[in-house]
Amino acid sequence: MALGGLGEIGMNLTVLECGEDILLIDCGVLFPDLYWLGLDLVVPDFTWLIENKDKIRGLVITHGHEDHIGAIPFLLKKMKIPIVYCSRFAQRLISEKCEEHGISDRFISFDVKAGDRHDLGCFNVEFIHVTHSTLETFALAIQTPHGLIIHSGDFKFDEKPYQGPPSDKKRFKELGKEKPLLLLSDSTNSERCGHSQSESEIHDELNRLIEEAPAAVIVALFASNIHRVHQLMDIAKRTGRKVFLSGRSMEKYVKIAIEENFLPVNLSLLQPIEEIQKYDRKEVMVLSTGSQGEARSSLLRLSKNESRWLKILEKDVVILSSRNIPGNEKAISSLVNQLYRLGATVHYEDMQNVHVSGHAYQSEQLELIKLTKPRFFIPVHGEYRHLVNHAKTATESEIPEREFVMENGAVWEFDGEEARILGDKIPTGRHWVFRDFDGGLEDISIKERRAAARAGVVVVDCLVSKRAVELSRKPLVALSGFLSPEKKNEEIKEEVSLQAEDAFNQWRVDNPDGFTREQSVAIAARKVVRRHFDVKPLVIVNFLNI
Amino acid sequence: MALGGLGEIGMNLTVLECGEDILLIDCGVLFPDLYWLGLDLVVPDFTWLIENKDKIRGLVITHGHEDHIGAIPFLLKKMKIPIVYCSRFAQRLISEKCEEHGISDRFISFDVKAGDRHDLGCFNVEFIHVTHSTLETFALAIQTPHGLIIHSGDFKFDEKPYQGPPSDKKRFKELGKEKPLLLLSDSTNSERCGHSQSESEIHDELNRLIEEAPAAVIVALFASNIHRVHQLMDIAKRTGRKVFLSGRSMEKYVKIAIEENFLPVNLSLLQPIEEIQKYDRKEVMVLSTGSQGEARSSLLRLSKNESRWLKILEKDVVILSSRNIPGNEKAISSLVNQLYRLGATVHYEDMQNVHVSGHAYQSEQLELIKLTKPRFFIPVHGEYRHLVNHAKTATESEIPEREFVMENGAVWEFDGEEARILGDKIPTGRHWVFRDFDGGLEDISIKERRAAARAGVVVVDCLVSKRAVELSRKPLVALSGFLSPEKKNEEIKEEVSLQAEDAFNQWRVDNPDGFTREQSVAIAARKVVRRHFDVKPLVIVNFLNI
Repeated sequence: MALGGLGEIGMNLTVLECGEDILLIDCGVLFPDLYWLGLDLVVPDFTWLIENKDKIRGLVITHGHEDHIGAIPFLLKKMKIPIVYCSRFAQRLISEKCEEHGISDRFISFDVKAGDRHDLGCFNVEFIHVTHSTLETFALAIQTPHGLIIHSGDFKFDEKPYQGPPSDKKRFKELGKEKPLLLLSDSTNSERCGHSQSESEIHDELNRLIEEAPAAVIVALFASNIHRVHQLMDIAKRTGRKVFLSGRSMEKYVKIAIEENFLPVNLSLLQPIEEIQKYDRKEVMVLSTGSQGEARSSLLRLSKNESRWLKILEKDVVILSSRNIPGNEKAISSLVNQLYRLGATVHYEDMQNVHVSGHAYQSEQLELIKLTKPRFFIPVHGEYRHLVNHAKTATESEIPEREFVMENGAVWEFDGEEARILGDKIPTGRHWVFRDFDGGLEDISIKERRAAARAGVVVVDCLVSKRAVELSRKPLVALSGFLSPEKKNEEIKEEVSLQAEDAFNQWRVDNPDGFTREQSVAIAARKVVRRHFDVKPLVIVNFLNI
Repeated sequence: MALGGLGEIGMNLTVLECGEDILLIDCGVLFPDLYWLGLDLVVPDFTWLIENKDKIRGLVITHGHEDHIGAIPFLLKKMKIPIVYCSRFAQRLISEKCEEHGISDRFISFDVKAGDRHDLGCFNVEFIHVTHSTLETFALAIQTPHGLIIHSGDFKFDEKPYQGPPSDKKRFKELGKEKPLLLLSDSTNSERCGHSQSESEIHDELNRLIEEAPAAVIVALFASNIHRVHQLMDIAKRTGRKVFLSGRSMEKYVKIAIEENFLPVNLSLLQPIEEIQKYDRKEVMVLSTGSQGEARSSLLRLSKNESRWLKILEKDVVILSSRNIPGNEKAISSLVNQLYRLGATVHYEDMQNVHVSGHAYQSEQLELIKLTKPRFFIPVHGEYRHLVNHAKTATESEIPEREFVMENGAVWEFDGEEARILGDKIPTGRHWVFRDFDGGLEDISIKERRAAARAGVVVVDCLVSKRAVELSRKPLVALSGFLSPEKKNEEIKEEVSLQAEDAFNQWRVDNPDGFTREQSVAIAARKVVRRHFDVKPLVIVNFLNI
């Protein structure tokens, strides 16, 4: 089953259950298109896990990206997880998160390396090295009483990674000889034909752009992409530049990578951003967060010239070495426009070869199927369109006996002989997180925010006599966020007041729909606005006893 | 000058002024990323035009796309325009708009054809045939007392358009011999290198996909793309399918195209959608609107199986023959997912060759510069990034003496000898439209909607004694759209009430910042919420005299 990641990019959480044992794989966040609603994050609904918490033997993490680890603190707040198996790098990242949330004591972890095996209940999990856009990424080979299950994690077959060896295809091939029961594989790029580019293939282009840059160079990238950071630092050294880090997560990730010996560079290259003014602009390379145009991110501040340390000037070169995450296009475009306005030269994926994806394309997805020869196939990590297209690739390979396209909550069952999707789903959903609180996206408070944004707010104040049965005067109406002119608004207020008064007086406890008196007044008020504009505002009704 | 289109895709409105004469070119809408705010449309701020209305000699329309004609009714509501010069097709579209707005009497127009010339004050405007993704598209050659100005409109150099001749390059070349003063040229695709594909190049792919389709075919496209409609109807005929139209604007555009003889097809191909059930699914081709996943559009309704006439079934083939407009990616993706869920096969630009752009790529943009050999160059129709990259192409051509990258409101002036950008800008901006009303995006009502969406609503009711100086009891507080749990909300309400009471009592008419008593109470309430959550809610303060 999956509580997340099947039918969406992000929020990955896969669940294996066998007898009395449950194994969890990853626990990530979704980056929502809903920041205008003031939400901090979106995480999976953990209801099913809480109901089954006694069976959970542990959580296995494939790698340290936010869409794989970001929801762990929110899960740990709701329940204990016996142990979390993860790489050293992911362990450090999760630790920091748990510290921020004040729940360090709940995070019990075990560092793993490629090749390690661990038992969790009846499951034996082997960690297999794969290449991806961050450090220490694993695929999983999970021995179960009913056969071998392979989970690709997020992967690509990069034959020339900038750091470390290529994916361990040899191991996949060996596992293929064991007749695996099931392959779960990363679908992110299933719509892209051919083979993804290697991390090394952008080296020449990055090197050329930076070498030719006549002034400061600012590169925006995901802080977790330590291979890319490594590559850029090598280029900085070669082109006589010092490296300055900008953005909280950039500092955090690089610090951890250095402490854990993942950045084999001369550390004198790194200089504190506070001292950037001491250097000639031709000696400067800034590595910055904010490639998605995120609010309050380092690059956005730079684009608005709000940084304390660096002003972007004409002739500076800005490189967005990252992909555009769907939903962020407008924000990124506005960032690029702003950088151009400052006179900078901007390079981005649309125009230059300055980024490669960390996810397998069709031919690599096919290769994994051919190597592992699974009996069954389930595409994971993708929107429905990606899952369908990945399944199509699997079908065309003629290797799996059957492909199953399934979404969050669907239950795939193997009874020892046959596989099928159960009729019933387990409860799943998307939960918003705001500060210390969370809830469902269909909550009344979310609906109230949407209604206010779309159609404004109507407040109806009813002054009620002490006996609580009579209005002591006609309701007072206030409008906010209305787009109509004052005169029209006065007319609406008048009408709402009349209708509200009428609804108040007409209301009886035994009204057929069982509305409260407040609800009846609200319905009457909403009707007035609908009649005028065909929209449904947020209506707030207050009964004030005097 | 431009009131729109310089620094954005959409809302095109270019202004030429010479002595006592003003000529307007196009008057379009912007499709905003702000539908969650309940806005209908975004149009240019017409303030400057209203101030200068006596000088306006007319409006010239390059073609009938919404980003070139959509704002005309809103302009006509504010002022009279002596005459609108436009193609017959655009004329029909604008007429219908004006009728809907009840201002037909204000729309005085003159049909033009390629090759026509008209005098508007001291300007003489010639209409030149160019290829684009809709019918009857013109570039303009404008003779002025100070030299020739060429405006490309929206164009591409399609050598094999599906209908009609290629762009009139011969005329551009002739004009080039007249030493044009200035070229204004379409920048939409200035980031794409090479040459755009021809409309004919997708024919084979569309034909193959439709021929191989085992059941119904639904093609979503922009209704204005009559060449594409023509092409699809030809394919329908060849593959033994009838054509059904779905979506109000599809019906409207095709009706006009037929009436004006722009669709040279056998009309028996077209059958009313009400009769679609009478046909075998292999005989069905639906042309639908909604390729952008727009709310309430035909394809969205189909994807939710809410259409009265057609249910999408397994084996049906859906083709999105259109580009993804930036900002719509999420909506389109969710539409594609939904169509896959119904079991349909979906083809879209990411995966198949089922759409070509209507705008020139870099090599065509360069070719227009080489043909017309302008002294000065201003890139138009694009975000800042597109303008900058287009200017770069012009610079590299070494033809114009100078390129000017300018945004809305900037004034480019030619004094007979030299060109320059004036220091002062004319007033411009984006105006929302909602029903019959309009206003600026910085209006208080818009801010109120945003605040409510991001942080919820606080209502503070102060019951004030008749003498209006004393609270008759402590303020009553209501919260709406708050994401915190009930207990926390009670705590906040209590605190807001206390602070509001304090602010009420402390307030004096001569307070240093000059706030009203209501404002002081609102500030105190807002502070409480900020202290708890670091967000600023919408605060509504009511003073109720009792």
